[in-house]
Amino acid sequence: MATKVSIGIDIGGTNSEFGIVNEAGKVLARGMINTPTKDNIKQFIEDLAKGIRQLMSQINDAEYAGIGIGAPNGNYYAGTIEHAPNLPFKGVVPFVELLKGQFPEMKKIVLTNDANAAALGEMIYGGAKGMKNFIMIAIGTGLGSGFVVNGELAYGSDGFAGELGHITVTAEGRECGCGQFGHLETYCSATGMVRTAFELLSHHNAKDSLLANKTFNQLTSKDIYDAAKQEDEIALTVFEITGDILGQALADAIHITSPQAIFLFGGPVAAGELLFKPIRESMESHLMPVFKNKVKLLPSQLRLGEAAILGASALVAK
Amino acid sequence: MATKVSIGIDIGGTNSEFGIVNEAGKVLARGMINTPTKDNIKQFIEDLAKGIRQLMSQINDAEYAGIGIGAPNGNYYAGTIEHAPNLPFKGVVPFVELLKGQFPEMKKIVLTNDANAAALGEMIYGGAKGMKNFIMIAIGTGLGSGFVVNGELAYGSDGFAGELGHITVTAEGRECGCGQFGHLETYCSATGMVRTAFELLSHHNAKDSLLANKTFNQLTSKDIYDAAKQEDEIALTVFEITGDILGQALADAIHITSPQAIFLFGGPVAAGELLFKPIRESMESHLMPVFKNKVKLLPSQLRLGEAAILGASALVAK
Repeated sequence: MATKVSIGIDIGGTNSEFGIVNEAGKVLARGMINTPTKDNIKQFIEDLAKGIRQLMSQINDAEYAGIGIGAPNGNYYAGTIEHAPNLPFKGVVPFVELLKGQFPEMKKIVLTNDANAAALGEMIYGGAKGMKNFIMIAIGTGLGSGFVVNGELAYGSDGFAGELGHITVTAEGRECGCGQFGHLETYCSATGMVRTAFELLSHHNAKDSLLANKTFNQLTSKDIYDAAKQEDEIALTVFEITGDILGQALADAIHITSPQAIFLFGGPVAAGELLFKPIRESMESHLMPVFKNKVKLLPSQLRLGEAAILGASALVAK
Repeated sequence: MATKVSIGIDIGGTNSEFGIVNEAGKVLARGMINTPTKDNIKQFIEDLAKGIRQLMSQINDAEYAGIGIGAPNGNYYAGTIEHAPNLPFKGVVPFVELLKGQFPEMKKIVLTNDANAAALGEMIYGGAKGMKNFIMIAIGTGLGSGFVVNGELAYGSDGFAGELGHITVTAEGRECGCGQFGHLETYCSATGMVRTAFELLSHHNAKDSLLANKTFNQLTSKDIYDAAKQEDEIALTVFEITGDILGQALADAIHITSPQAIFLFGGPVAAGELLFKPIRESMESHLMPVFKNKVKLLPSQLRLGEAAILGASALVAK
């Protein structure tokens, strides 16, 4: 009997990964190519197709449900990637249409933004199985989110819903990659944590901090985590501030969609209670009574290295 | 042939209104009783039932789809009114169950919070016909909201979704009726506008303002509107500030659910461009590019006096 599988593709700023996933959420084969640094979409699609065909040749007797794609600024309805600041492709790329040219035999080719894909991955393969209302928060270079409402992913009127990273947390605050100011992801993301560390270093003139010997371009959220484990004051304060702001934003989101749980995903989530504790405290302190002590704050159950592929494949596996 | 109708009930802090509505959204008959000031739910249910029976006797040959109820802190799933600060009933009131005792013949008796009901009213009888994703904002004593996502009202995991009035707009800001601080409705509501007026009067020591001769308990948002029409500086600034904060909150909501339109409803909305202009400017200024100049900001198409009944009836008319 044929094995039922689907293909997941995750388009990232540096690399693009892809894999073949079975119904149980096991990645049977996976591959990767570099995302080009120049706007040569035709070549990229051909390279991607070649890589995927190679994987397909490794799986015998497979029945394909289709291809799911997670991409920054992915438009679910149009199947396009639109003005993605971290990708080299300019304007509106008809990604699904281009991929259909390479895989005419596939029944379904569907695209959405990466955090929406991760939310579907959590719902189908992860910790949100059976949940009708939950929120997925993906903390990386930026902060992405996917909102599941009444058992369905919220795509909104234009396919772009779920941009919690761009709600305003400080009017006239930090400059955001999108051009506006004070947005959540300028504080609560790997990048935001580095910005907070540098703000704190300058504010406290903290020459003895473990973080004082790296350049702005060198410092990572992992460095901050390592310093926090060694009780570095600046690093610990970065986690406090990040958690405090994220907790307030999550409370906002709870007031709007009243989820059963919020899942956190991404590199900085590895810090565990160092991050979860201040988030939880701040979140609860901003909630109106009817929502208090009700919403679970959980780490994603998807493995970090596989989540993007699983999530993308979940788009067609459902 | 029997006329298909449904019954709508709006439970308010002062009065409770009810009406019989036909499929076209016409209120065929309506009535009102005082909401009691003491916690006597049994008597209230009996009085309400009596009033409704009286209306029913006026309509010949009607076929009833059921009874819909809009109430503050209404829980859609449980059919209960829970800890409503502006109602005399303590704790959790099994409102739907009590009403079923009075109307055993009704196929459906459904309850939700008043702003959710208004959203359904807008979708079925008003300006949101055919829209799959929109937000209803009801500005009154507080600020209520209803979110329609993928064509369905978002009730959330517990029946309480849609509390945009309680997102945090200023950390450590004004005290909110719910016990927390800095929530949207402490600024952007009829009450919030009065609070802003008094803050401005005190800040500017504005003895010559038209608003300087009313007590805190006397002043209404209508007074502020009247003063603004006469170019009173304080009153005009109240509208600027209210619009500025509400616009930022609406941008937050857009980033999350990406609606096609946002409908504003309630007394202060009568101020028209005086309120809409600062909201629109602030909203657009906080949006990431992909959402800019896309989301319609519209006045509700429901008549102010009928909206609550229409909305409630829409709960069962759908």
